[in-house]
Amino acid sequence: MPTSPTAPASTTRLLDAVTDGVEVFDLGRRLTVGMPQSPNHPAYWHALPRRHGDMVRSDGGSAANDMISMGTHVGTHIDALAHVSHDGKLHGGLDAAEALAGGRYDQLGAHTIAPMFCRGVLLDVPAALGTPVGCEAGYEITRADLEATVAAQGTRPAAGDVVLVRSGWGRRFVEGAPYVGGESGVPGVGEDGARWIAEHQVRAAGADTIAFERLAPGAGHALLPAHRVLLVESGIYIIEAMDLEDLAGAGVHEFLFVLSPLALYGATGSPVRPLAVVARG
Amino acid sequence: MPTSPTAPASTTRLLDAVTDGVEVFDLGRRLTVGMPQSPNHPAYWHALPRRHGDMVRSDGGSAANDMISMGTHVGTHIDALAHVSHDGKLHGGLDAAEALAGGRYDQLGAHTIAPMFCRGVLLDVPAALGTPVGCEAGYEITRADLEATVAAQGTRPAAGDVVLVRSGWGRRFVEGAPYVGGESGVPGVGEDGARWIAEHQVRAAGADTIAFERLAPGAGHALLPAHRVLLVESGIYIIEAMDLEDLAGAGVHEFLFVLSPLALYGATGSPVRPLAVVARG
Amino acid sequence: MPTSPTAPASTTRLLDAVTDGVEVFDLGRRLTVGMPQSPNHPAYWHALPRRHGDMVRSDGGSAANDMISMGTHVGTHIDALAHVSHDGKLHGGLDAAEALAGGRYDQLGAHTIAPMFCRGVLLDVPAALGTPVGCEAGYEITRADLEATVAAQGTRPAAGDVVLVRSGWGRRFVEGAPYVGGESGVPGVGEDGARWIAEHQVRAAGADTIAFERLAPGAGHALLPAHRVLLVESGIYIIEAMDLEDLAGAGVHEFLFVLSPLALYGATGSPVRPLAVVARG
Amino acid sequence: MPTSPTAPASTTRLLDAVTDGVEVFDLGRRLTVGMPQSPNHPAYWHALPRRHGDMVRSDGGSAANDMISMGTHVGTHIDALAHVSHDGKLHGGLDAAEALAGGRYDQLGAHTIAPMFCRGVLLDVPAALGTPVGCEAGYEITRADLEATVAAQGTRPAAGDVVLVRSGWGRRFVEGAPYVGGESGVPGVGEDGARWIAEHQVRAAGADTIAFERLAPGAGHALLPAHRVLLVESGIYIIEAMDLEDLAGAGVHEFLFVLSPLALYGATGSPVRPLAVVARG
Repeated sequence: MPTSPTAPASTTRLLDAVTDGVEVFDLGRRLTVGMPQSPNHPAYWHALPRRHGDMVRSDGGSAANDMISMGTHVGTHIDALAHVSHDGKLHGGLDAAEALAGGRYDQLGAHTIAPMFCRGVLLDVPAALGTPVGCEAGYEITRADLEATVAAQGTRPAAGDVVLVRSGWGRRFVEGAPYVGGESGVPGVGEDGARWIAEHQVRAAGADTIAFERLAPGAGHALLPAHRVLLVESGIYIIEAMDLEDLAGAGVHEFLFVLSPLALYGATGSPVRPLAVVARG
Repeated sequence: MPTSPTAPASTTRLLDAVTDGVEVFDLGRRLTVGMPQSPNHPAYWHALPRRHGDMVRSDGGSAANDMISMGTHVGTHIDALAHVSHDGKLHGGLDAAEALAGGRYDQLGAHTIAPMFCRGVLLDVPAALGTPVGCEAGYEITRADLEATVAAQGTRPAAGDVVLVRSGWGRRFVEGAPYVGGESGVPGVGEDGARWIAEHQVRAAGADTIAFERLAPGAGHALLPAHRVLLVESGIYIIEAMDLEDLAGAGVHEFLFVLSPLALYGATGSPVRPLAVVARG
Repeated sequence: MPTSPTAPASTTRLLDAVTDGVEVFDLGRRLTVGMPQSPNHPAYWHALPRRHGDMVRSDGGSAANDMISMGTHVGTHIDALAHVSHDGKLHGGLDAAEALAGGRYDQLGAHTIAPMFCRGVLLDVPAALGTPVGCEAGYEITRADLEATVAAQGTRPAAGDVVLVRSGWGRRFVEGAPYVGGESGVPGVGEDGARWIAEHQVRAAGADTIAFERLAPGAGHALLPAHRVLLVESGIYIIEAMDLEDLAGAGVHEFLFVLSPLALYGATGSPVRPLAVVARG
Repeated sequence: MPTSPTAPASTTRLLDAVTDGVEVFDLGRRLTVGMPQSPNHPAYWHALPRRHGDMVRSDGGSAANDMISMGTHVGTHIDALAHVSHDGKLHGGLDAAEALAGGRYDQLGAHTIAPMFCRGVLLDVPAALGTPVGCEAGYEITRADLEATVAAQGTRPAAGDVVLVRSGWGRRFVEGAPYVGGESGVPGVGEDGARWIAEHQVRAAGADTIAFERLAPGAGHALLPAHRVLLVESGIYIIEAMDLEDLAGAGVHEFLFVLSPLALYGATGSPVRPLAVVARG
């Protein structure tokens, strides 16, 4: 990778690190019509208004294009701080009604999420607990579990990092409805686990489930304590429906985390395709 | 930024390069209702089906969410190779009809675009041509212009890089309809400029205009030679409606380029928020 | 109801018939987010991009508005002849590919359905069969059943009429998913019943189920013989997901039928709200 | 048209009136991608997620279907009473915020509009004023104009009727953007004309323009007095973007009016295809 004399030496060093060989893990799910998602959000739909051949230019050229309809909390996505309020207040005590401007969350909307390019840590909880396939349905990942995982891995999240909590539930994404887990329950961190995350002052926390939360069997989304602790109380973004299986399978616990949400003005979240980058030099 | 004993030394070096200080340039446009876009594609629309207070959980928690409708060639976006055909063939001679599976581009669709994490080069053409504000409407950026820019900057794109061609037209994005430029024309590379890009074997080429192409005044999208040369003949992705003003303003011509398109199954493109990263160590 | 000297005497007679008192039965289902529908079609979603107060004009006026995303075969709807083909042919032997123009069904699309204002006949099959609550799941309504119903009611459909076949399954619409009936099966006319309908040369046939067809338990939409017989072979429109309970409950078997589909250019169907009008003079 | 012995004599008389021959005028516009509409509302878009041949059943059957995205105030449509408020109040003094339930207008939403089957009166204003092609851009149709039209035609709207006010502007629908008329202005009734309509206690008032109102040249939708008078003060529905040219061309001023809006729960309006029926016996 040639670098020019005009590039600062430090950028050259960054590019050199890339040139030496990196491996990029794709942590996002493919978006397909019919994929599992919460019924609380508009379903992902896609169609081709125009296919090749529908309209051909005089030189033989033809373009196909798309039409998409969706919620922002479908597929792999990030929650903006405008997503959840408690007692009428968003993060920082901001009044939820005042955060609106003309019907969109001018304050704390998805457009205010800065792209992330920082250290990431995967906490492979089921591996640390001796059940590497995954935690069972409805299992609550506790503070103790998270500490045990840090100890087992030797990787503690630092301030400004992004922490990804693997439950193993992501392996069920391909099954469809069972992934949502309304009846079975879904494993995840509860209120105390969320506090542990917040104490580490990370900028975002991700999981391989659709709701991040631990859902008790049959209880659905009655209460969402981790959302309250992270989004409202701590200003920590939540990333959901991540694919953490390959990363965990490769034994990668520490990496460069990259996430660049769409700057959807006034929205409460954005679909994303996060990346974990490791050097293979 | 603490790194664990378990991380490979090379990843530690990559993270160290980040820790030393990076600056991230946001090359994506904010998505807002009413932003300029081609009338050939479904307009971006957004609404909040639920706002805070519409439904409050027993503990005082409340969630707001979104509904979005859009094309994939609106806002800052990347064209998949399935987007354009010529004489019924996609890149690699693939029959455009056969690339479909059940009504979606199973082959060469947006889901087949690998995330990009590589060297990027900005060619600030108007700066090199002595008109830093921008090329005039309808100006064709020629092979000679591109060579002159490389010479002025000292940065030549290499195989596997992403090259971004600034025309300066991006400054008109905020004006709305004039940015689309149907009547005025829009500056951009023509067929020969596209061939120059292809000869450099880059993986993607971006621009600060909605159609990448040079559009002659009043001529609209009659023919799209750069799309044919890049997408069909060369298998090079096109990124459109980028915001290159800050990057150019900072005089950054070489950087780590990051782009992670949504893996929209079978689609012809994806909205994106590309990043340019430089070290500020 | 005053009529002017300029109105033709015959229109005056029509208006007099209305003035004497009519009762209008609403045969359409309310469209709500989450209502039961086939997963083969984009789900109905609705949001308010703007509510009152989001933007207030200088005189105190404010407008709220909507954003809708949906398929055309959701809620109460009519199938255009472009909806179903057999061996690549639409009704009249029209080649299905040639019926397209620029990606929409220029021929036989929903915009070609003339509004209906004609005699309608309700065939209350379960009432005639002695099970007025409804036919059981998966029951096939036969030619003999239809004849028995005509005999019991004394109302035979004539050429140009619209015939509505009640199965009683519509009472399950409020239950949600069970209405779709993938596992249980759904009652409806089979191939021979459809032929009986076609022999009566009606212009449209409606039912109180989502798919019109008899669906065997667990078999889903493997084959759709009634669609083939009616739409493809006979050019008879199909109306689905009708609410026929009130009409049946009132014992009305003959009425003025009114249906005015949206003229959606090139679409394969349209949501509708059909009416049955009877005189109460 | 055979009627059964079971039908009441009065329904038989209604059906006889129909049998003797009716002519149905289609007052709705065709919905096409790119048709003129207000930029304040989500644009109408349509695509075929599935075309014939994309998926063929074992017997040779194939179904095509649709995906639609739109506002409810696009194409020919009716405004629900929930559409406009004044000083925070909807019709009947209902608080605009309280009319919501879970983010939809439970009260006064489109689902509360009863289907219309009643006398209709067309007021062909430009014909009465001696300019049958149409009123000029920005012309305000006054109370005196409406009275003059009633006198010329001999048809006065009565309580419970629907009145349609032709301006002639509808002929410009096919021109696209000029129909919206932001720069030119659009003819229509002003505040006093709206009061005249309200005094006649009609149930709905329609027009052949996109906004019903008289729009002054260049002034846009700054104020909407007719909406306030009709929707808020009088509880009279407004129907917009009607096609009144054929009806006027045939010299029909009195007819049976039929309109059956989609029962969109909680929405502020609905697309419709209204009909005018006259006897041709």
